[in-house]
Amino acid sequence: MQLIALKGLPLVKRGDDLGELITNARQKQGLRLEDGDVLVVAQSVVSKAEGNVVDLREVKPSPLAERIAVQLDKDPREVEVILRQSSEIVRLRHVLIARTKHGFVCANAGVDHSNVDPEHVTILPDDPDASADRIREAIKRKLGVDVAVILSDTQGRAFRRGCVGVAIGAAGMNPLQDLRGKRDLYGKELEVTMISPADALAAAAVSVMGEASEGTPVVVVKGASYDRNYGSARELVRPPEQDLFR
Amino acid sequence: MQLIALKGLPLVKRGDDLGELITNARQKQGLRLEDGDVLVVAQSVVSKAEGNVVDLREVKPSPLAERIAVQLDKDPREVEVILRQSSEIVRLRHVLIARTKHGFVCANAGVDHSNVDPEHVTILPDDPDASADRIREAIKRKLGVDVAVILSDTQGRAFRRGCVGVAIGAAGMNPLQDLRGKRDLYGKELEVTMISPADALAAAAVSVMGEASEGTPVVVVKGASYDRNYGSARELVRPPEQDLFR
Repeated sequence: MQLIALKGLPLVKRGDDLGELITNARQKQGLRLEDGDVLVVAQSVVSKAEGNVVDLREVKPSPLAERIAVQLDKDPREVEVILRQSSEIVRLRHVLIARTKHGFVCANAGVDHSNVDPEHVTILPDDPDASADRIREAIKRKLGVDVAVILSDTQGRAFRRGCVGVAIGAAGMNPLQDLRGKRDLYGKELEVTMISPADALAAAAVSVMGEASEGTPVVVVKGASYDRNYGSARELVRPPEQDLFR
Repeated sequence: MQLIALKGLPLVKRGDDLGELITNARQKQGLRLEDGDVLVVAQSVVSKAEGNVVDLREVKPSPLAERIAVQLDKDPREVEVILRQSSEIVRLRHVLIARTKHGFVCANAGVDHSNVDPEHVTILPDDPDASADRIREAIKRKLGVDVAVILSDTQGRAFRRGCVGVAIGAAGMNPLQDLRGKRDLYGKELEVTMISPADALAAAAVSVMGEASEGTPVVVVKGASYDRNYGSARELVRPPEQDLFR
């Protein structure tokens, strides 16, 4: 399996056609896209292209946002955006862990002030699977190749320190793989019954992207093994009724 | 970044020198190990080589283990081993989430009946960082190259379905990377302050290993970017007092 960062992608702005930016960049780089490749695209550039950017100067924080902002040592306007993106506040202590409207449980409901203009924040795409599919379809149209696309975000974990990449959107692949019925070296049923290839590829790709100013928000993965049947990245969300840690 | 599965590793048994098995296998494969490569090694083979395998026929389950076994639909002797490996039962419903003596919070305290003889289970290595370091030192001695070594396990997540690889041991690298003070594209401080390269590489490598009988428990990662300062994989464990989900 090989991961190659796409170089030379311009700063993405509202209305940009990411499919076109990606095909142009890979051409300049002399990088060949092939059937079965997986494109991992950082949520931040998708949000920017789709206009999911909020100008904080137009946000009036509620008294609740003002109070939480003090507790979190954050801009109250940013907290207001976080609350508007949340369907449930799962934990509120020194960090705010929220459930987003998509069902994802993550810090700050996915609202991020990094890699966007000052006084602005990005919010998660409205429908990350659909965003991934638009990029997949654009690549298919322009280059005639069938790739899978993963939208990645960088998130913390409940019991482990340090963030890793996860998949918040997927197209052209099944983000969850069911191993039930598969056998181990000794013919016994496997202890692990379900794995997430999409999260594994997102983690790998985000580690190649980097988080800081030298970052490259698109990574091409070659030679990954995955199931090409469509599935939604929302299937990666543990349903609240199966959630042991609410 | 490139990930290459090591082929032809024999079935590992107690007392085996993993460093030697790995150097022999990579020679047969014509695979060159170089300074800076990362070897990701599945916990199961390390546990087997180090004798961290329990014969269930020698385990007498306690009344507590008997009762939990009914609830989990598991072998009571396996539950007894899980309880002996636990320092805290974090959740007990249809699954048992425990804190291990190392501090890791995971299902069944890392006890696994897959890829080991029938009537046996593997338990986590006593000191996974030390296990990783022994492999690293063996490679250095035999081949004169400085590699980092990660011990991987496949674990579930609190809020996401599907297991992914994580690092439970590390040598020759810092499993946590502190981004505080780094700047984004616009010169602003990053929202994400801490990332885990070790978990990202473990997730990537485990997706190449596979879980089932055709699996390969050692993966070589080339071109990964990481900090060569030593750090313990236990630093990846969120200290209980910072744990929002106890």
